[in-house]
Amino acid sequence: MIRICLIGAGNVAIALAREILENNALSLEQLICRNQNRIPNDLSHLPISNHFNTLPDCDFVLIAVSDNAIHEVSQKIPLSDAIVVHTSGASSIDLLNKHSKRGVMYPLQTFSQDRRLYWQEIPLLLEGNNTDVKDKLEKLSKTLSSVVTHAKEEERLHMHLAAVVVNNFTNHLYVEAEKFCKSKNLGFDMLIPLIEETTRKLSSLDPRNSQTGPASRGDLQTIERHKSIAMTNELADIYLFFTSQLLKQYNENI
Amino acid sequence: MIRICLIGAGNVAIALAREILENNALSLEQLICRNQNRIPNDLSHLPISNHFNTLPDCDFVLIAVSDNAIHEVSQKIPLSDAIVVHTSGASSIDLLNKHSKRGVMYPLQTFSQDRRLYWQEIPLLLEGNNTDVKDKLEKLSKTLSSVVTHAKEEERLHMHLAAVVVNNFTNHLYVEAEKFCKSKNLGFDMLIPLIEETTRKLSSLDPRNSQTGPASRGDLQTIERHKSIAMTNELADIYLFFTSQLLKQYNENI
Repeated sequence: MIRICLIGAGNVAIALAREILENNALSLEQLICRNQNRIPNDLSHLPISNHFNTLPDCDFVLIAVSDNAIHEVSQKIPLSDAIVVHTSGASSIDLLNKHSKRGVMYPLQTFSQDRRLYWQEIPLLLEGNNTDVKDKLEKLSKTLSSVVTHAKEEERLHMHLAAVVVNNFTNHLYVEAEKFCKSKNLGFDMLIPLIEETTRKLSSLDPRNSQTGPASRGDLQTIERHKSIAMTNELADIYLFFTSQLLKQYNENI
Repeated sequence: MIRICLIGAGNVAIALAREILENNALSLEQLICRNQNRIPNDLSHLPISNHFNTLPDCDFVLIAVSDNAIHEVSQKIPLSDAIVVHTSGASSIDLLNKHSKRGVMYPLQTFSQDRRLYWQEIPLLLEGNNTDVKDKLEKLSKTLSSVVTHAKEEERLHMHLAAVVVNNFTNHLYVEAEKFCKSKNLGFDMLIPLIEETTRKLSSLDPRNSQTGPASRGDLQTIERHKSIAMTNELADIYLFFTSQLLKQYNENI
């Protein structure tokens, strides 16, 4: 049984806590957070603490807090034999320098409150400051996921950037499209099968080969019709920005 | 049995031909296209023609060609009792003015060669130039899909714009992220569970409430780390563009 202390009360911490609880190979010794009110009801029976002075014996201390709090939290954790690990894609392992055994376990996924995820398919990117830490972190990670890979800080940061592009930026497009539909009394729901197919295609087709639409076929007439539609400044800027990049690629390929 | 002549050899035409063939309520009387070589093997047994002089008797002539060819094709179709219909989201029904019974059936979906889609969930947006045409077009559409709705030209154009945003623009983000991963020797495949979850969330959460990432929490330090990564001009522009819009929304909300 791998014994874990978990620090944080954000989306990643809550998702990890729920998963650890259901995992027979893991035991959640303590959940530590500043504000216990943020812990959802289904986790309220856990041993919860709001200070670091008396960490119970454990194999791992997992820090799942926002990037700018990692170093401060790490400094507060008492020295022990446990491996101290953060879960950030964009932060250095060096933030944990106080601790002789330190690592990173970055789950490449988006976590929202009240959504249960299937952890076995979440890629976990690992880093450890020595071979023993790497081995133990890999063992822990393999109890959570079947997609476990070691990645140095630079690779992890690159994957984090790519994740921001395909998740945060894509979601921003959905937000602006949803606002637009609402403003025109149209159901955004009608777009969901299209969005699902756009996603499904990725597993069988290179996205370059499945690009369609007016800009990627140089259809300036349709683009002009779109531009004449009343929309927010944000969406108008998005339209011009993408149309310009796609037309440029179209013109380079003809 | 509703008898159909279908014009075109692009992705929409091929998808429609395959679906009509498998639909017991429909009969594909003829497939008309300029270049028969574009017809895939599984459809080569169909009655295929490359001219419009001798259209067989039918109830509908479906024009599934690119927007800028619709008018020309419509002019070539001999006058008859059939309802002439185009399938474009961004084109007016008026392009078919030669014909006394005319309509539009716009499938809100992205079609790629070699991908079979489940038509029952593809929204079909209909327009007809009189009540009889509308009724008959609705009857035809309901044999194909369970999501059938009447929409005037303006509404259809609005949905087409929204579709361009959530499909073409999103796919462009995938293209640029894939190029980036390749340039850094990282597997784009690792991002697919994240993209799938971003899509799945839409069915239960307003995308505004599931936005995450450095820009939407004002994390300037992570943004600076991302900006320091070597990437193509296109991706750098994408990064700056989205980060600017997301930071603006963040600053308006704090």
